[in-house]
Amino acid sequence: MVITIKDIYQQVEKFSKLEKIKVGGWVKSVRVGKEKIFITLNDGSTLDNLQIIAERESSPSGLLEKVNFSSCLLVSGRLLFTPQRSQPFELVVLGSDLEIINSTADDYPLQKKNIPLNVVRESPHLRAKTNYFLVLFRLRHSISKAIHDFFHREGFYYVPTPIITNNDAEGAGEAFNVTTDKKEPFFSKPANLTVSGQLHAEALAQGLGKVYTFGPCFRAEKSHTTRHLAEFWMVETEMTFADLETIINLAEKMIKYVVNYVLDNNIAELEFLENYDKENKKEIINKLKKIVDSKFKRVDYTQVLEILKERKEIFVFNDIKWGVDLQSEHEKYLCEHFDNNPVFITNYPADLKAFYMKGGILPEVKDRVLSEVKNNPDKKMAVCFDLLFPEIGELIGGSLREDNYQTLQEKAKQKSLNIDNLSWYFDLRKYGYAPSGGFGLGLERLIMFISGAENIRDTLAFPRFNGKLEF
Amino acid sequence: MVITIKDIYQQVEKFSKLEKIKVGGWVKSVRVGKEKIFITLNDGSTLDNLQIIAERESSPSGLLEKVNFSSCLLVSGRLLFTPQRSQPFELVVLGSDLEIINSTADDYPLQKKNIPLNVVRESPHLRAKTNYFLVLFRLRHSISKAIHDFFHREGFYYVPTPIITNNDAEGAGEAFNVTTDKKEPFFSKPANLTVSGQLHAEALAQGLGKVYTFGPCFRAEKSHTTRHLAEFWMVETEMTFADLETIINLAEKMIKYVVNYVLDNNIAELEFLENYDKENKKEIINKLKKIVDSKFKRVDYTQVLEILKERKEIFVFNDIKWGVDLQSEHEKYLCEHFDNNPVFITNYPADLKAFYMKGGILPEVKDRVLSEVKNNPDKKMAVCFDLLFPEIGELIGGSLREDNYQTLQEKAKQKSLNIDNLSWYFDLRKYGYAPSGGFGLGLERLIMFISGAENIRDTLAFPRFNGKLEF
Repeated sequence: MVITIKDIYQQVEKFSKLEKIKVGGWVKSVRVGKEKIFITLNDGSTLDNLQIIAERESSPSGLLEKVNFSSCLLVSGRLLFTPQRSQPFELVVLGSDLEIINSTADDYPLQKKNIPLNVVRESPHLRAKTNYFLVLFRLRHSISKAIHDFFHREGFYYVPTPIITNNDAEGAGEAFNVTTDKKEPFFSKPANLTVSGQLHAEALAQGLGKVYTFGPCFRAEKSHTTRHLAEFWMVETEMTFADLETIINLAEKMIKYVVNYVLDNNIAELEFLENYDKENKKEIINKLKKIVDSKFKRVDYTQVLEILKERKEIFVFNDIKWGVDLQSEHEKYLCEHFDNNPVFITNYPADLKAFYMKGGILPEVKDRVLSEVKNNPDKKMAVCFDLLFPEIGELIGGSLREDNYQTLQEKAKQKSLNIDNLSWYFDLRKYGYAPSGGFGLGLERLIMFISGAENIRDTLAFPRFNGKLEF
Repeated sequence: MVITIKDIYQQVEKFSKLEKIKVGGWVKSVRVGKEKIFITLNDGSTLDNLQIIAERESSPSGLLEKVNFSSCLLVSGRLLFTPQRSQPFELVVLGSDLEIINSTADDYPLQKKNIPLNVVRESPHLRAKTNYFLVLFRLRHSISKAIHDFFHREGFYYVPTPIITNNDAEGAGEAFNVTTDKKEPFFSKPANLTVSGQLHAEALAQGLGKVYTFGPCFRAEKSHTTRHLAEFWMVETEMTFADLETIINLAEKMIKYVVNYVLDNNIAELEFLENYDKENKKEIINKLKKIVDSKFKRVDYTQVLEILKERKEIFVFNDIKWGVDLQSEHEKYLCEHFDNNPVFITNYPADLKAFYMKGGILPEVKDRVLSEVKNNPDKKMAVCFDLLFPEIGELIGGSLREDNYQTLQEKAKQKSLNIDNLSWYFDLRKYGYAPSGGFGLGLERLIMFISGAENIRDTLAFPRFNGKLEF
């Protein structure tokens, strides 16, 4: 029975009492002394390595030639406390208990330590052999676990929404088509990959009350930014009988829960990332602690315009008037303006947002003079929010959903959507529709923020984007 | 603040002390008395309903016409204990505190109670409005949560494997193509939907040690059985330094963990399903308890043949000899033969299995005279297993993976796979490859078994299969 290095660190007392323990992993470094061989081993279970000390004399012949960087070893030995050394304990093995499972061939692309990220990125199948990606993947695990735990605790049901669909949700992103090689179509209708599970999640919330999704979404957009993927994971949540404030509070509570979870479980990973670039150290742990302690700012779109107008001169896009969409430069400035806190922006102009958003003006916005909307606020403004985060921009978007059958249909028509494909979605409003709202979170963007990763493509092993398809 | 009926049942003491509580949900039944209106309300949070008692006199005019089956209500009232009645408590409301949010239109397809399943199936978007599907969806939630919890506790990392890929894994299933409307291809290579995340999970296990996936897979198979979907969710796990026994034990432990979780958290749902078909009651809870208490049987393929040969006459396919694949009738008989216990079958002929499986003969099989394989067991037999379950057949398939670069490549060639597309996968064997193995579980099949659902299409809201595409 092979045990993990994480287990050893967590139960070192127990394992130090055993005659022998067995560990398998990959060689991070080898040093050959006169009588002894010193090997640093890692097995992926934790960032911590295990120091192996082997007798040179008793080692199998040819062993030293085979033990190279990243080769795979299986060793049995006794755990020995070494309080006087840099590592708290070592595994002392007889050389004959050291078995080379597989050496690393000469053409291994990641021979050197501290290999630049752009080289590792070229070998997605080997990403998990580098500390940087191991750390990001372990963070991704924690973030995912925390999200499931959070929604479960809050009484939300995890639902699968379909990946293959004949809806393209917002009509916003370009959708991938799904076909087969056969002449006869596989499905009864043209099929595409989902761009959002929201509409389907809404149908489920009309029976389950509170639901969330956790699954892949797809956009065939030819963007080559550091913040977009063609295949990404979304967490979408939908709940009945909630007002916008409740949904906004849920989003804030979720983010804080996840960040707290990471701070509780992944300090080693965060410290690694802070010091990864020796010449450009990052402050991640304090940044995350600040998130947990802060109250996220809440402003509405109309207020935002006032704030932006005051510094008009610093923007490239400076035609700031009611109805314009916010640009990245504006979003960035806003977070800075609020002391690098996350900012909820509410009540955008309806024209900037998806057809399914409920129209209306929030009480706090109502009092202000808004010539553009005062005659017909329900049509002109959407009861919605975006959550902007420092570093990454939009992290979450949410809204109440239009509950009126006629209005909803009209809005869809105005956006030139395929009305026939959406009739089932409109129909929900006819059959005991409960007022409903929710939000969508781009999982990889949250991972970016928490890890400080500069490229969204680094948040998973096999990123999908325009112009390439590896494995 | 609207609270859920589940919350009320869980903290009834607390809520009974409040002046008023607010609840929203859907009408399951209405009864009008002389002075009072009795409404049964459900909000999806639990199978339990809330009994609402309203004063008829103070109700808004026209109310009774609007409150119909499945209409949506919002009510505020006081919780009153009623130990003398069938329900433990009631919500007593002033009629004016009863608000109809949305009636059900006359064309509602699920007007009647106890509507047959084949009618509900025609309206996927309304499935969550029926108790049967609500129960299945809540079970699915619990099963999913338990799987994540289990792997997390066992030290496995949750990894995303790509949905869009240019591999088709086993070359077994027919894969869907992914394209765009544009002339220029979006990706650099032909793209298809994943049929299994295993190969990618293997790459990740070569750094993380123990990983699992939880995501959608796709097969463009034109099968119309009750056990196949074109889009289904798989849980695939991969671990380094494990032998087949360890992997088999992990599978058994996982199933038992999940079943225990459901027994602990969903007894009401299970009881509902036991009694759903009044004329054909099912035994589900005892069946599940038996799973938890039993030791799953372990036999090898060669033994299985002996067992089948003894009852040769009962099979349609009765040419039972070494090398033939097991048919459903055989699998069904085997579970029955072992007193309806789950059965692990190990060491199948390699020709019946995927190219990536490690060749070899298990020690317990070795002793038997097997003229077919004795000369070259490593090529003729696969170190693999299938887990057969009563009612549903194959639930899990697993194996050790071929670790030899040359052998693996040869095997892929023999199966006529695209060698170039797989070179990255072969290469894993050259760079410090740790022996690895794992298994794949079809999530919907597990839900079928646990719920007793007779059709896999009922385990999720929007099933995808040949010939249809709804929403």
